[in-house]
Amino acid sequence: MTDGEWRVLSRSLVFDGHPWLEVWTEDVLLPDGRQVDAFYRLEMPEYAIVVALKAGKVAVQRHYKHGARTVGLHLPAGYIEAAETPLVAAKRELLEEAGLAAERWVSLGKYVVDGNRGAGAAHIFLAHGATHEQAPASHDLEAMTLDFLTLDDLVAAVRNGAVPQLAMAAAIGLAVVELGYVEPHFANPS
Amino acid sequence: MTDGEWRVLSRSLVFDGHPWLEVWTEDVLLPDGRQVDAFYRLEMPEYAIVVALKAGKVAVQRHYKHGARTVGLHLPAGYIEAAETPLVAAKRELLEEAGLAAERWVSLGKYVVDGNRGAGAAHIFLAHGATHEQAPASHDLEAMTLDFLTLDDLVAAVRNGAVPQLAMAAAIGLAVVELGYVEPHFANPS
Repeated sequence: MTDGEWRVLSRSLVFDGHPWLEVWTEDVLLPDGRQVDAFYRLEMPEYAIVVALKAGKVAVQRHYKHGARTVGLHLPAGYIEAAETPLVAAKRELLEEAGLAAERWVSLGKYVVDGNRGAGAAHIFLAHGATHEQAPASHDLEAMTLDFLTLDDLVAAVRNGAVPQLAMAAAIGLAVVELGYVEPHFANPS
Repeated sequence: MTDGEWRVLSRSLVFDGHPWLEVWTEDVLLPDGRQVDAFYRLEMPEYAIVVALKAGKVAVQRHYKHGARTVGLHLPAGYIEAAETPLVAAKRELLEEAGLAAERWVSLGKYVVDGNRGAGAAHIFLAHGATHEQAPASHDLEAMTLDFLTLDDLVAAVRNGAVPQLAMAAAIGLAVVELGYVEPHFANPS
């Protein structure tokens, strides 16, 4: 236990919705000696998200998501299956949902979804040089339309509230950071 | 029911961890007429996150988060209390956790945390012209150290994996988009 880490003294499964979600309670020991009982932990599947660039434009899906209760813009994404690495899952989802394969893949990081509860993790990828490989054939429950937007237009969509999901906003922001795209809104931070 | 929305036919509370989390199951009707039973829904509190700029640097906390199981860099953030708007909560958290007040506030959006399950929402703010108001006095369980980093250094920290939480990565990426900051990593998207 170093540098502020909490120690898990015991844990119990209190709701089993496997494979989609499990709720655990954990009794934890804080570095200052305090004990906190029944701190909730969510175990949920990790997923991969892809910012795929085809001729300078990003592959974007417009569809409903029940978590957000609204239709909006999303990126190709999906749960990582048992035998897959995050990159393999990202490549499979890009092919299934957008019919694309890509030349060069860059990891933009792995991020835990909830800072307190866990709730799985998002693995974000940037895929350069995407090309059409096959017709999209998603097995998801949501009917989706595929489009290609410039990063400018995608950023404008984020600003207009058309990107409802946290992981998609993160992926777009991190892609902008990575690509050095810039359309300054405020010239000078203060 | 328009444009691909799902209709909730009935819902049941299957685990009550109020106020931290509730698990519901929802029977839903898809636009194509299919019915999906027991689709999991997580009700969790919404929270506010602040990218606060003080003399051109961002207020950053280094501390442990149990969701991530690791020590890392975070931004001032916290749950929105019952009587608060997201902006009021953001101002309170910035004052409590960093001892700062700010001149000008910009919303960078509201984002649902999980695209399928809900799991609350993150309200992200950019605060310009922050000034020291009082000593930080957080009531959080984690012991934290406060620091001020340039956006360059914060972006480098994200790239190095030192920012473990999705909402913090999103806030930093969206702040870069908003401020027009750029340190190009790849010159030409392809």
